[in-house]
Amino acid sequence: MSAPHHRYDFASDNTAPAMPEVMEALAQVNSGYLSSYGEDEICEQAAELIRAMLDADAVVKFAGSGTAANALSLAALAQPFEAVVCHEHCHVATDETGAPGFFGSGLGLITLPGASGRINPNALPSVLARPDDSHWQSAAALSLTNTTEYGTVYREADVAALADPAKAAGLKLHMDGARMANAVAAGFDLKCLPRLGFDIVVLGGAKAGSTPTEAIVILNRDLAHRFGARMKHGGQLTSKARFLAAPWLGMLGEGAWSTRAAHANAMAKRLAALTPFPLTHPVEANAVFVEMDEPTLQRVNAAGWHIYRFIDGSVRFMCSWATTPEAVDEFGAVLKGLV
Amino acid sequence: MSAPHHRYDFASDNTAPAMPEVMEALAQVNSGYLSSYGEDEICEQAAELIRAMLDADAVVKFAGSGTAANALSLAALAQPFEAVVCHEHCHVATDETGAPGFFGSGLGLITLPGASGRINPNALPSVLARPDDSHWQSAAALSLTNTTEYGTVYREADVAALADPAKAAGLKLHMDGARMANAVAAGFDLKCLPRLGFDIVVLGGAKAGSTPTEAIVILNRDLAHRFGARMKHGGQLTSKARFLAAPWLGMLGEGAWSTRAAHANAMAKRLAALTPFPLTHPVEANAVFVEMDEPTLQRVNAAGWHIYRFIDGSVRFMCSWATTPEAVDEFGAVLKGLV
Amino acid sequence: MSAPHHRYDFASDNTAPAMPEVMEALAQVNSGYLSSYGEDEICEQAAELIRAMLDADAVVKFAGSGTAANALSLAALAQPFEAVVCHEHCHVATDETGAPGFFGSGLGLITLPGASGRINPNALPSVLARPDDSHWQSAAALSLTNTTEYGTVYREADVAALADPAKAAGLKLHMDGARMANAVAAGFDLKCLPRLGFDIVVLGGAKAGSTPTEAIVILNRDLAHRFGARMKHGGQLTSKARFLAAPWLGMLGEGAWSTRAAHANAMAKRLAALTPFPLTHPVEANAVFVEMDEPTLQRVNAAGWHIYRFIDGSVRFMCSWATTPEAVDEFGAVLKGLV
Amino acid sequence: MSAPHHRYDFASDNTAPAMPEVMEALAQVNSGYLSSYGEDEICEQAAELIRAMLDADAVVKFAGSGTAANALSLAALAQPFEAVVCHEHCHVATDETGAPGFFGSGLGLITLPGASGRINPNALPSVLARPDDSHWQSAAALSLTNTTEYGTVYREADVAALADPAKAAGLKLHMDGARMANAVAAGFDLKCLPRLGFDIVVLGGAKAGSTPTEAIVILNRDLAHRFGARMKHGGQLTSKARFLAAPWLGMLGEGAWSTRAAHANAMAKRLAALTPFPLTHPVEANAVFVEMDEPTLQRVNAAGWHIYRFIDGSVRFMCSWATTPEAVDEFGAVLKGLV
Repeated sequence: MSAPHHRYDFASDNTAPAMPEVMEALAQVNSGYLSSYGEDEICEQAAELIRAMLDADAVVKFAGSGTAANALSLAALAQPFEAVVCHEHCHVATDETGAPGFFGSGLGLITLPGASGRINPNALPSVLARPDDSHWQSAAALSLTNTTEYGTVYREADVAALADPAKAAGLKLHMDGARMANAVAAGFDLKCLPRLGFDIVVLGGAKAGSTPTEAIVILNRDLAHRFGARMKHGGQLTSKARFLAAPWLGMLGEGAWSTRAAHANAMAKRLAALTPFPLTHPVEANAVFVEMDEPTLQRVNAAGWHIYRFIDGSVRFMCSWATTPEAVDEFGAVLKGLV
Repeated sequence: MSAPHHRYDFASDNTAPAMPEVMEALAQVNSGYLSSYGEDEICEQAAELIRAMLDADAVVKFAGSGTAANALSLAALAQPFEAVVCHEHCHVATDETGAPGFFGSGLGLITLPGASGRINPNALPSVLARPDDSHWQSAAALSLTNTTEYGTVYREADVAALADPAKAAGLKLHMDGARMANAVAAGFDLKCLPRLGFDIVVLGGAKAGSTPTEAIVILNRDLAHRFGARMKHGGQLTSKARFLAAPWLGMLGEGAWSTRAAHANAMAKRLAALTPFPLTHPVEANAVFVEMDEPTLQRVNAAGWHIYRFIDGSVRFMCSWATTPEAVDEFGAVLKGLV
Repeated sequence: MSAPHHRYDFASDNTAPAMPEVMEALAQVNSGYLSSYGEDEICEQAAELIRAMLDADAVVKFAGSGTAANALSLAALAQPFEAVVCHEHCHVATDETGAPGFFGSGLGLITLPGASGRINPNALPSVLARPDDSHWQSAAALSLTNTTEYGTVYREADVAALADPAKAAGLKLHMDGARMANAVAAGFDLKCLPRLGFDIVVLGGAKAGSTPTEAIVILNRDLAHRFGARMKHGGQLTSKARFLAAPWLGMLGEGAWSTRAAHANAMAKRLAALTPFPLTHPVEANAVFVEMDEPTLQRVNAAGWHIYRFIDGSVRFMCSWATTPEAVDEFGAVLKGLV
Repeated sequence: MSAPHHRYDFASDNTAPAMPEVMEALAQVNSGYLSSYGEDEICEQAAELIRAMLDADAVVKFAGSGTAANALSLAALAQPFEAVVCHEHCHVATDETGAPGFFGSGLGLITLPGASGRINPNALPSVLARPDDSHWQSAAALSLTNTTEYGTVYREADVAALADPAKAAGLKLHMDGARMANAVAAGFDLKCLPRLGFDIVVLGGAKAGSTPTEAIVILNRDLAHRFGARMKHGGQLTSKARFLAAPWLGMLGEGAWSTRAAHANAMAKRLAALTPFPLTHPVEANAVFVEMDEPTLQRVNAAGWHIYRFIDGSVRFMCSWATTPEAVDEFGAVLKGLV
């Protein structure tokens, strides 16, 4: 097989194009003059859709990347001399090149273990019980990721098992929802987040199938004070903000955000059924993680598929809104041919 | 006249929609899977167009806002305990909510005066001659803005009069080109920037008529080392980077970037000819600045046109690629009716 | 005249040695083992003396430099995307190499004019009235300096004229008291600061005649939360803190802090009476500022006295606890010989 | 036994007073006027002694705390989007409340394992071989600590086994020598550090028996450019710098720095011989680490000795220049009485 360049179909959910609903919304808002920097009616409409989805009176801002959305949020939730508690393999801790420490001016991370990306609730109490001391960064916030870095889903009870004690200990709560569409498609109820006292929730656009946009949903309105200035100061206040808001009109207007995520999840299940390699994590959303030795991985890549090894040693296949059953079957056959 | 909401036609060049060439390019790149985070061929093609335009072997990165592009660049050009020399009214100094100080970790600005936004060359030598001292932030870079905050244009000789002595004194050179398209349309030759030893040039997309994107053109390749990590750390490494690169294919492929800027410049000249108010700055590109008292300004706004007073006390009218002669004439008539 | 090296008697109040009371206190605490990092009884005793002096239930911390004490304080009073209002020539704005921007992660300064280092109260209202906007750093705190950078003294009424409207507008209040001993010696009543609602007051040790130590007096106890961690994170939590606290026992035990400052003030008045050069600022504490042309300044330095020109163009002579009448008279004679 | 307050004899080497040589040196320099901010002859003399000790033409600066000295140094050695490689339990990583991340503006740490505080050389190659990637903070510097956090000593060959490959891979080299006096007393040759290409070495004053002072020894003179401004910006440029320099005259003039450290090391060996608890780390300098269960630790504290459990679960006893054989024997007897 001749491979002029690699196929990125399963490398990430970032490699896919944007869904039609997003492109249509972009075209639709592209007329007339509008107030800039987020003060326009498109931003307001998109915010309203998000508030309705969470059933909460939140302030909603749109950022250009998940890293920025998370880092801005964490900086609002913890002081530079404090720390955020998170999973040891979460995106914030392992895949953001230190952005939380930069936006948070030296803010620390306290990382906890837990199977398949979910924090083990038994690991939390000792962190919460740790006395204040000037010689370390005390926990000021808890950050969860749903779906997790390993494609698993926190159910409401899972979230509560961590959020409740953290909240009781005075911590603020942050949700990295870069792949929240996939969690929702898998049954997670977004409305539990305001109920559980979450302060800021980031909802992912890009991985769900949008052009660049992420929504910062500020449920704790005290934290919204001068948040626009915080964004500008952090290089995240976009002038033509309508183009960050419009994708949400497209994705949420008729529910494409979650129905297309449901498709991505289904494609992952289909691929999981086809792969001859042992699964290393339960397939609960749009990711498939398998055990694969290095020579085999190299053969997959040599066959033209760009795939890589993850932090835990597994090899990851991601599905997206754009993944077709045909591509899954084709890739599944390639995998089968390698064992 | 009933004004359900304000018209933002002349409030800023940020209030306009995106030009058709940009929307078409977005649609065109929206198929297939691509490597993410700037490693795709769309990014490469856009970079190549920009390199050709400057006739320089630059590293080109795409950022989501001008503030971020400038702040990332300045942080690469000066240490936190050093300073950047710039015009006292430039965007970096007055309209970025301290972003250079944030990205630069306390980096300072040394602001200089100069008529209509151009630094007075006579103000520079004393800054360059200032001896190093631990008690102040010594100048490490010079930042120019073209077109300036007052819509005037630095010609090559103007730039050289500042850049040459700064370079000779060991300073790095930065160009904030958020409105460089308008400068080019007014006759500025971009190719002089590599010749004059500029280290980083930011080229504006948004104000030129794009969806959000700015190009960071790193002419000094030593500074490109780990620039991707610098961007990720600063929340500016966009996953689906094709959507930041594609607009440049649309804008530069057939020259729309500068021809549409030429239209904007022409509209400003048309408006300048119509306005009954005294001009406060020469109209050299797409901005018209006039002297207007407060009651009159309030009447303009009451007539439904969102217009505001600028830092120097002038009132500003901006034209863009989307400004029509009809709108100019309509607005001109409104203005005339107020005197 | 042969000058093996310069005399620094009048160059600054930083050039003097430490007063005997400080050296004795250092010797006195130098025995036995003590808890470190500020948890010892020497720190507690010093804090108690300071609380008594201000008649306020403050949390008191000791830092190693005035720059650090101010910068840590300002970072506690304003967010990175906010600004501190201060005099355009105050130490924080002109002589700290950007430290407030560093400790405050890009925090801004809004500088106001005012004769002889005191902010003109008429300049404040427009800053306080400025509406919140994402495009600039809104004022979050007011910082005053007493004595001022020009050796003048804010009286209680002067402070109130600025502090009252600032407090009413929601700003926090900071006092840079690097030379507060001189202000107190000139009649300023420290107890007015808690009454006026000051949040943090920095009291200077070094310039008053101590080995390195400055006291951060946190009057607003909400701000004291994890302040030790803030100091450690900022490199300012000293292990053997007894040596930063002991000087305060020496300086405050019998009142040397202010009586020796009164001597410094008297020496300045004596020098002012002797100098043949016109005074540029009223001599209210321990500084004398005069008008002097460049050739004359060079002759003073050639005569072996290290003296320099200040930001406002004046030449400054500083007196300290250690200044002798004889030195004043000798220097006065040198000055007279030059005109 | 009545315990009015705890005894801190063995809690840390920070709890001891200052050695007589330091107090005498402070008294000796306390006369006359001197240029401030490190430009005086006392600073120069102290620097010269340090240069002689390392046999290197270094720039030497004095800081007020080890945390600041380390953090300033690391910020000079790695960019914010890069990382410093260090031992997982080193002071920089575990006991500085995130100061490296603050001074380094989000700089990362890559922590490696290794017995008793020494990095396992086998853990280093995979870090050095890790390819550059925008999604993580690539290693830019290696930081070693001698003596280590567990009181063990890196010999020259141990240092070379880590420094050589790191240097070959382009990393800068930093030595945290907060307890270097103890390492030298144990046979470590400081002169190997310039030979091995170390860029910055921090030498500890406080733990060696000084009032607050640490020396930043900049061996790579390129890094010394504007280091004074870096210090001022970081709140570490002390006005009356003679008081940070003088202790070094006292400690190094007649060798007290290392001879008194040799005494501390001997006291640790004496205590190690007396303790009935199993040692958890080799006693190579001034620390003794033992295995002790919680009830026993509480009884030690109840007996009036402030002692605490360390990060690895051991209980630590520290000796200092001030530790007497009698105190060791007394404490040893207390320990014996508890088993």
